[in-house]
Amino acid sequence: MSNPTAAIIVIGDEILSGRTKDKNIGWLAEQLFSQGIDLCEARVIPDIRATIINTVRHMSSEYDLVFTSGGIGPTHDDITTEAIAAAFDKPVIRHPDAEAVLLKHYANTDLEFNAARQKMADIPMDADLIDNPLSAAPGFILHNVHVLPGVPSILQAMFEGLRVRLPGGVMMTRITVQCGSGEGNIATIMERIQNQYDGISVGSYPWFKPGNFGTAVVVSGLDALITGQAAEDIAGAVLALGVTAHIVMPGDTA
Amino acid sequence: MSNPTAAIIVIGDEILSGRTKDKNIGWLAEQLFSQGIDLCEARVIPDIRATIINTVRHMSSEYDLVFTSGGIGPTHDDITTEAIAAAFDKPVIRHPDAEAVLLKHYANTDLEFNAARQKMADIPMDADLIDNPLSAAPGFILHNVHVLPGVPSILQAMFEGLRVRLPGGVMMTRITVQCGSGEGNIATIMERIQNQYDGISVGSYPWFKPGNFGTAVVVSGLDALITGQAAEDIAGAVLALGVTAHIVMPGDTA
Repeated sequence: MSNPTAAIIVIGDEILSGRTKDKNIGWLAEQLFSQGIDLCEARVIPDIRATIINTVRHMSSEYDLVFTSGGIGPTHDDITTEAIAAAFDKPVIRHPDAEAVLLKHYANTDLEFNAARQKMADIPMDADLIDNPLSAAPGFILHNVHVLPGVPSILQAMFEGLRVRLPGGVMMTRITVQCGSGEGNIATIMERIQNQYDGISVGSYPWFKPGNFGTAVVVSGLDALITGQAAEDIAGAVLALGVTAHIVMPGDTA
Repeated sequence: MSNPTAAIIVIGDEILSGRTKDKNIGWLAEQLFSQGIDLCEARVIPDIRATIINTVRHMSSEYDLVFTSGGIGPTHDDITTEAIAAAFDKPVIRHPDAEAVLLKHYANTDLEFNAARQKMADIPMDADLIDNPLSAAPGFILHNVHVLPGVPSILQAMFEGLRVRLPGGVMMTRITVQCGSGEGNIATIMERIQNQYDGISVGSYPWFKPGNFGTAVVVSGLDALITGQAAEDIAGAVLALGVTAHIVMPGDTA
């Protein structure tokens, strides 16, 4: 049995123009990893209706789960809801539960629940709502597409509620071996151990600090024992070169 | 005449697993914007040969310029160079200029220029080299694909040298109007001004601080005068609501 697969679509001209730096891909990637879901691809696309429709259709058929962020607010450039409805040939309706929760939210503020804000209660027919504990405006799930806002704090709060509804997978074990050496020195060791064990993946990430450099070697695999053995083999072989190497324990500051 | 179009491909399992947070999309997006190049799409893909080949072919035919980051180091999981060569049916050769620059670089260190490091002199036939002022290993340009490393500091240093070789476009004017109001309050104003002027785009980005919130309204356009007029109209209409609004001058800390 393999883990569920997933893709992320970040929707927003502001990311492509560099004005806003995306923080959602990295955060969602970590959450999906810890949930045992394999993130296979992420795309940043503009606020163009046809692009959203084509990308959502493609990713929805290609992967078990799709997550979108951005474009579900109250303004004219927030076209995600309508485009995703169109991708699945659904009309958009004023959703009574969404409207109720927004009405209640705005009744507790001095903000008017005007036409722009009412738009946030428009949801594709047959979609399930995703609660928004911060600013009330819900996201939704249509088929396998999970539609979330672009503001990271709100996306994160909404994902926490969504988490229990996602399918679980086998959590990957990931072990870091910190090596006091450039990756060129230890490349053959990593390749040898990668080939020696089935089902593990060995990645290497060079780092540089003033006066110091090294490589974080990351061993990942579904089987915790095999992954641990491979990490120890790498640490041992690197130490045998006369270079420092230690396995980073959870809680270590690397 | 329209601006050149571009796409970014970030290649790396470590981004999709959440271990490493991508910083290259945001940085490159800003550089391309300031160069008058329209970034149309960004993708994060895994270190899978067929995925790299298919993605590079697709993006290369779809956009004027493609930038990749990641996977050109000395280790077994660095398969970008070979995959991009394959995408254009080119062999990979030991490039004499790349080899010379790496030989010279390693002669000045106590690091051995071993087989793994020599691999970084392997470049697709007919590619142009991109200088690497930090760690010597060059990137390359094949057709319209610009191949850069994943480490942000090295990518950034290499892009600085590459910049003069890129086609220029008309630099977009981008003006921010800071409004002391939620975007729901000013949505109709933004939509009205968006429709009133040709060739401008109005985006809105809500922000939240403890005890305070507001919206950054961003007006973009190729014509600086029209863009400035639209920004002033928005500021005026928001002020008329009794809400604060001011145009952010370059150098202001927003």
